[in-house]
Amino acid sequence: MRAVDVILKKRDGEELSREEIQFFVTGVTTGSLPDYQASALLMAVLWRGMTAQETAWLTDAMVHSGVRVDLSAIPGAKVDKHSTGGVGDKTSLVLAPLAAACGLIVPMMSGRGLGHTGGTLDKLEAIPGFRVNLSLDEMKAALVSVGCAMIGQTKEIAPADKTLYALRDVTGTVESIPLISASIMSKKIAEGIDALVLDVKTGRGAFMKTEADSRRLAESLVSIGNASGVKTEAIITRMDAPLGRAVGNALEVIECLDVLKGRGPADLVDVTVELTARMLVVGGAADDLADGKRRVRSALSSGLGLDRFRRIIEQQGGNPRVVDDESLLPTAPARHVITAARSGFLASLDAALVGRASVGLGAGRDRVEDPVDPAVGIMVVATPGDELRAGDPVLELHYRESRRLDVAIALATEAIQMGDQRPTALPLLVGEVR
Amino acid sequence: MRAVDVILKKRDGEELSREEIQFFVTGVTTGSLPDYQASALLMAVLWRGMTAQETAWLTDAMVHSGVRVDLSAIPGAKVDKHSTGGVGDKTSLVLAPLAAACGLIVPMMSGRGLGHTGGTLDKLEAIPGFRVNLSLDEMKAALVSVGCAMIGQTKEIAPADKTLYALRDVTGTVESIPLISASIMSKKIAEGIDALVLDVKTGRGAFMKTEADSRRLAESLVSIGNASGVKTEAIITRMDAPLGRAVGNALEVIECLDVLKGRGPADLVDVTVELTARMLVVGGAADDLADGKRRVRSALSSGLGLDRFRRIIEQQGGNPRVVDDESLLPTAPARHVITAARSGFLASLDAALVGRASVGLGAGRDRVEDPVDPAVGIMVVATPGDELRAGDPVLELHYRESRRLDVAIALATEAIQMGDQRPTALPLLVGEVR
Repeated sequence: MRAVDVILKKRDGEELSREEIQFFVTGVTTGSLPDYQASALLMAVLWRGMTAQETAWLTDAMVHSGVRVDLSAIPGAKVDKHSTGGVGDKTSLVLAPLAAACGLIVPMMSGRGLGHTGGTLDKLEAIPGFRVNLSLDEMKAALVSVGCAMIGQTKEIAPADKTLYALRDVTGTVESIPLISASIMSKKIAEGIDALVLDVKTGRGAFMKTEADSRRLAESLVSIGNASGVKTEAIITRMDAPLGRAVGNALEVIECLDVLKGRGPADLVDVTVELTARMLVVGGAADDLADGKRRVRSALSSGLGLDRFRRIIEQQGGNPRVVDDESLLPTAPARHVITAARSGFLASLDAALVGRASVGLGAGRDRVEDPVDPAVGIMVVATPGDELRAGDPVLELHYRESRRLDVAIALATEAIQMGDQRPTALPLLVGEVR
Repeated sequence: MRAVDVILKKRDGEELSREEIQFFVTGVTTGSLPDYQASALLMAVLWRGMTAQETAWLTDAMVHSGVRVDLSAIPGAKVDKHSTGGVGDKTSLVLAPLAAACGLIVPMMSGRGLGHTGGTLDKLEAIPGFRVNLSLDEMKAALVSVGCAMIGQTKEIAPADKTLYALRDVTGTVESIPLISASIMSKKIAEGIDALVLDVKTGRGAFMKTEADSRRLAESLVSIGNASGVKTEAIITRMDAPLGRAVGNALEVIECLDVLKGRGPADLVDVTVELTARMLVVGGAADDLADGKRRVRSALSSGLGLDRFRRIIEQQGGNPRVVDDESLLPTAPARHVITAARSGFLASLDAALVGRASVGLGAGRDRVEDPVDPAVGIMVVATPGDELRAGDPVLELHYRESRRLDVAIALATEAIQMGDQRPTALPLLVGEVR
């Protein structure tokens, strides 16, 4: 098989065979396929798309570029959640302990923040001592001991994805539904889970800006999961404004602790309960969604979720006392408040711009290799629909270096849209795909 | 400027700026742009196309990746011809000496055969001793001495093209009109010519299969040439069946000598006279096309063209006695005749398949680095329109190694289509673009 023939076939809009897709993935994994041929094929895929069958073959080949973890020795349903990424999207830190407290086994492999979105690993590392780079054996030990492991992608998991993702990032080939689907699902399938709930974000602060694209991605992901024997369903949720009030790593950890303590903003609580309840249903630990929600709310109010988070932190080397003493988390030395320029209603708060402002302060990164500052970030003081007077606070920037402040202020100010009428409140939950 | 932003812009169908195109070409030439980004951009260009303005900027940047030769010290109009490539397309070897004999200066840089098409350099090298790898100084000396130099692309000429072409070849990004146009025209403009006549082939044996595509390519080429101060025009000629009777390097040299001796097949003579006459017109050495044709036919019948070819061969180190003694050219040791399977008319003779059969015998190459056998090839015995009886010869394979014969016979046999009616003869000259 010649690589150029595979490229030509896709370039001309034809469906690739399983063998051709395997040839490509093997070539990428072993390095026998030159980068320049891989990137030309990626651009052709972005252009021409892939059928559901091709995408399933691609995912399968990527899963088998590494190991598919066998968790069958651990009793219980192994269920994970994946979000396509947003701003202030911190549900993982709440739902993983909640789901474990409700009897599921949660082997959660997450990523780091990139671009304007945050990442679960960066948030966890805001907790002093927390280790996300567990080996597969350490992951299994954590699952047996506390029912949950929150870790980064290990080198055994879908190594082809690592290479492909790095190449896509620099060749303008990220925004392809089949490539995104295969990337997400290969890692999830390789984790060894039985079931998966997806949170596909849609809107200004999401990767997919339109509901139609978000639904197509959700359908692609669900189809691949179910075809691979992982019971998969998705919800589509709005990501126009940040989720909750906190954006930035330590700030988000504090907000997660608030939720686990029975407080926390309603939007964040609602999405987290919805996702966790669905995990219980697909994992067989609840009869239906209503039953699932009852169980999750009970784990919240009883404090069992919070207790489980404490044990997870301890299991992964973190200081469990942060749960009761938030002052042990890193704090930014200075704050700057952005106020409403005029009176009226807060019409919208652009999640992407808030996210970029937070990255500007050092909470995120534009390049994979950049470090993040766990302490800095943005607190949302007013949310869309609030009636404000000129001078009322809208956003509070927690910063360390004043040289970073100007750009962040400009972006954050641009994120604020005032209006004369109260904006229509749109439901967070847009749809579901099963 | 970030390479990925340039890729994203073209991927999303936008027009690149002059600076972005220059950044790309400089990056390719110096190696500062990784291959994988170059190939992703090439695929995006193939997908989205380029405007006439972008193509002109690309060509200009490629010209300036090397030197634009200054031939102003040599008196006379410098005129070249370029063909987009075909099977049996040997006009260069006839028209270069003819045009020089008519008073033009012909600095001709040609290529080698690739795929099913032949290349001028391979044909010239069938002449014992002929050196095509002249330096720029040797080229100038030849132009002064014999009014013509027939050479390969030197390292000073459009080095970006060399790198880009090699990359396009292995990444499925050859078939793009802007990329083809910039590749052809950057080399021609860098040669230092005043005027150029293009022969854009169309049909089964051509790179462009349809008249519409061929016309688009011709328009693109002519537009770039004129914008760069090179007076450029194009004709579009049919390449369904091989041009002339000979396919293969030494066999084609013999046929060229036949033409220069006032013999040779009519189709080849006609196209050659047409092209040479147009060279005289754009070069100011003839008043109009009719005058040009008279002058060319006179140079043919007087033997001045043949004489000039003898001097060119001698100038470039070849044995000039081949002109009078064809037995000095390499000859294949064995022949195999393919006959008509049934009686009727020869309906068509697929140039691409005849070309591939000839490559199969060793006359051409699939990879740039492969050697060719100058002696082998195919003689066309019957041409489309001929009435044949079953068993009459159609093609004569001149071969060296019998292990190569089977594939060549299969391809050559497939090239032959018999019919019951005499096929309509289509004119060779399809159109012109000025």
